Amino acid sequence: MADTGADMNGAEAVVATLVAAGVDTCFTNPGTSEMHFVAALDKVPGLRPVLGLFEGVVTGAADGYARMTGKPAVTLLHLGPGLGNGLANLHNARRAHSPIVNIIGDHAIFHRQHDAPLASDIEGIAGTVSAWVRTSETIDQVARDARDAVTAACTCPGQIATLMLPADLAWTVGAAAAKPIAAPAPEMPGADTIDSMARILSSGGAGNILCLAGAGVNGRGLQAAGRIQAATGCKLMCPTFNARIERGAGRPLVEKIPYFADMAKASMQGASHLILAGAAAPVSFFGYPGEDSWLTPEDCAVDLLARFNEDITGALEALADAVDAPSEPDCSAKTFKPGLPRGELTPATIGASMGLLLPEGAIVSDEAITSGMALGPLTAGAPPHDWLEVTGGSIGQGLPVATGAAIACPGRKVISLEGDGSAMYTIQSLWTQARENLDVLTIIFANSTYSILNIEHVRVGAGAPGRNAQEMLSIGNPELDFVRMAEGMGVEAARADTAEAFHDLLAAAMKKRGPFLIEAKIEPIKFG
Amino acid sequence: MADTGADMNGAEAVVATLVAAGVDTCFTNPGTSEMHFVAALDKVPGLRPVLGLFEGVVTGAADGYARMTGKPAVTLLHLGPGLGNGLANLHNARRAHSPIVNIIGDHAIFHRQHDAPLASDIEGIAGTVSAWVRTSETIDQVARDARDAVTAACTCPGQIATLMLPADLAWTVGAAAAKPIAAPAPEMPGADTIDSMARILSSGGAGNILCLAGAGVNGRGLQAAGRIQAATGCKLMCPTFNARIERGAGRPLVEKIPYFADMAKASMQGASHLILAGAAAPVSFFGYPGEDSWLTPEDCAVDLLARFNEDITGALEALADAVDAPSEPDCSAKTFKPGLPRGELTPATIGASMGLLLPEGAIVSDEAITSGMALGPLTAGAPPHDWLEVTGGSIGQGLPVATGAAIACPGRKVISLEGDGSAMYTIQSLWTQARENLDVLTIIFANSTYSILNIEHVRVGAGAPGRNAQEMLSIGNPELDFVRMAEGMGVEAARADTAEAFHDLLAAAMKKRGPFLIEAKIEPIKFG
Repeated sequence: MADTGADMNGAEAVVATLVAAGVDTCFTNPGTSEMHFVAALDKVPGLRPVLGLFEGVVTGAADGYARMTGKPAVTLLHLGPGLGNGLANLHNARRAHSPIVNIIGDHAIFHRQHDAPLASDIEGIAGTVSAWVRTSETIDQVARDARDAVTAACTCPGQIATLMLPADLAWTVGAAAAKPIAAPAPEMPGADTIDSMARILSSGGAGNILCLAGAGVNGRGLQAAGRIQAATGCKLMCPTFNARIERGAGRPLVEKIPYFADMAKASMQGASHLILAGAAAPVSFFGYPGEDSWLTPEDCAVDLLARFNEDITGALEALADAVDAPSEPDCSAKTFKPGLPRGELTPATIGASMGLLLPEGAIVSDEAITSGMALGPLTAGAPPHDWLEVTGGSIGQGLPVATGAAIACPGRKVISLEGDGSAMYTIQSLWTQARENLDVLTIIFANSTYSILNIEHVRVGAGAPGRNAQEMLSIGNPELDFVRMAEGMGVEAARADTAEAFHDLLAAAMKKRGPFLIEAKIEPIKFG
Repeated sequence: MADTGADMNGAEAVVATLVAAGVDTCFTNPGTSEMHFVAALDKVPGLRPVLGLFEGVVTGAADGYARMTGKPAVTLLHLGPGLGNGLANLHNARRAHSPIVNIIGDHAIFHRQHDAPLASDIEGIAGTVSAWVRTSETIDQVARDARDAVTAACTCPGQIATLMLPADLAWTVGAAAAKPIAAPAPEMPGADTIDSMARILSSGGAGNILCLAGAGVNGRGLQAAGRIQAATGCKLMCPTFNARIERGAGRPLVEKIPYFADMAKASMQGASHLILAGAAAPVSFFGYPGEDSWLTPEDCAVDLLARFNEDITGALEALADAVDAPSEPDCSAKTFKPGLPRGELTPATIGASMGLLLPEGAIVSDEAITSGMALGPLTAGAPPHDWLEVTGGSIGQGLPVATGAAIACPGRKVISLEGDGSAMYTIQSLWTQARENLDVLTIIFANSTYSILNIEHVRVGAGAPGRNAQEMLSIGNPELDFVRMAEGMGVEAARADTAEAFHDLLAAAMKKRGPFLIEAKIEPIKFG
């Protein structure tokens, strides 16, 4: 620190520290107490600011950015309420193990005593989603605090770190950038664990399930899992909702545990061992009357290869070697082209169009809820692509995550699959996509209902929805017009109500760059 | 309880308890864990459900409802993330002292151990805004818990109570409704306090300021304040942001403490005594470099008549009697009609149109930020009306509060004044206004910038905004089209860019009923 001198104000020192640590993007929705941080973005180069009109866009975009780059973006949020507005997507990001550094402008320290209108328990709010929370208290510690925040965020497998920067420390001169400190490397499971799992897999064949999450469904981890499958015949599975899965033709095929508990149980029936590599033992999303939340078959042993915060990739590679796996997986997903869809527009015809038109390297942000259930098999044989899901189950993630993913990967097509109900939580994302001219195609599955809740209403034993309940589950009165809303935020849009019209729109959208929205008018899926 | 038998499920017993306590409205954005509560809305009559597409709409609407009725509505929110999405407007509601009962559907108790994706620290989130937090743990306590929540919410001057209702208690049969328990009456300040304030006021004349908040700017409290002014010549003032002020021709005129600290200090210059009736001693909204946050002049004594949670109305009436005040205030605001505005559309011409056209009994939800600063004087002489403000300083309150106020007061015109930046936080409110056919006129002050931040950037000493900063403070690229967005959510809308066009639109809008939006294209206000 001695070299640079302590000649920056606190905000500049924080920005310089973040940049030195490799952070390059700042998603913002600032207020008065963040003005010096905003000013510092001009004085200290290296941090690209991206404005969101609502904090849920900001935090969700940081999540999407982290999922695609593996490194933290910074969010800039205004006091406790600004953090509150971003909380739901931080919940999803926490479940995705995304590294994120939140910088919250706080009141000046001398102003705290007055309990001004915007004062609130920011640390209390932050603590519910963050692995690391700190409020800077002196000017000579702000850079250290920013550095520690990045280190915490980068601690495997990725964490949320929230730093409160009081306004007076932001404007006080007397700080210097702090040098980054590398996060600790994740621990490898012990050799005995590897050996023990290798013994199970080598003897069990198809009765074994290797349940992958995090690094296990990406890159080297996924390749190692495919090798293990090739050598032992085990089944590869993953949770219902994942931060990022690499899938598509030529990659190991990982079967997803279905959302509904009975289907999930069926998918694991007959298994003798469930080996966890980064995943938690599967449980149902909600508790249901008279049903066990635990999904693993009763006579199936649950074994642990690697915890979520251990070296999942290393463990899988060691395990692949231990079972004498071939150097390449031979169990790859095969290229598959669905037939050209015709007639009524349905989630399945949309899935077929997707399967036919998805370009290599596409990034799919999937928040289509019930409408998305048909898409998995129809796109499994498309060219290699990434699939990002609602890890924490809090809807309103899809559009922001797509936004952040597009910022992270400017050369790749991003496709945002959205239920109409889900889309309305953070619809402001479209404006940021327009402003930054992001290559995001949004597909709204417009069935005018909270379709999942119509199903869950019955599944939890509440019977068929009555008049009031129907009103609470339907969003068709008045009908939402996503074309107008998108245009109102600067995004070109069109509507389709037949399979052919949708296919043509999708084909055209795949050929152009920049934000576009298709409103797909469909009927709600009928179940059971 | 013995009479009714314990034959309801938990959700039904909670609804029946709420209805028995006089609660009649439930703002909802439910998920799976709230399905039995939704079903109970059909089985137990008396609670009107109003759906919001985003939880910030739900909590803000409950706030608006509470401000207009003085009683709690219920919100129905989905787990921790749903509460998070509603947190910013609960912050505002807390600062408004609005009674609200939040019901959060939680995971089934037997499901807790599994840390399913949607699990989070709900009590931690709730505790940051609630005066009362409880999680129901047994079926024979859910009704008692709901009853206690209402009592807590109704405790003077109004509080936020948050009850977590685990899904399994909602569906388990074995509960009965609980009878309401009245909240404790607020305490009166002691007779010595009244005497002492009466002595100050009787001797001080115009050097005394009576600073009113809460019940002091409404109904009998405001009338008593006007009587005190008539008898003693004191000045009536109130905070910058108030939950609800009754104002307009024929009512006592209460001067607002300006937002900017220097103007606020000037407004109190020369005062010898500042007597607080429900208000806190005025402090600046933010801390600024080299400036004291404390706004009261140094040689002015600060005296306490009544705390925010004491009987403010009783104290003011006792004080009026103690100073031998006349039975009616004679210091009333006089009818004032601004001149017909012409030419360029500005906040001032909009204020003039408002002053000319505001109907008696109008409810104004004011989140116009910089654009609203011109409106106060121009509407002070309009027919009697109510004015609701951003009590906690967290923008995104205006549209939801207008929505809730319209639900509360179906016979009254509601006018929602919105900055374009502010409007985008909870723009989904428009859909609820359309669905419920609420008589809400929304006026968007469309200046394509976070105007207040351009001012604050300079005021906090960060200088003129640089290139990045300008990008973060401007929202004009792309331009937001509020007409299309409103139409996309089922609300008729039009645009005006001259004073004449706006006036004609406003006049027409005042004559019709139902939701309507005017986008007023203006230039940002230039300060200093």
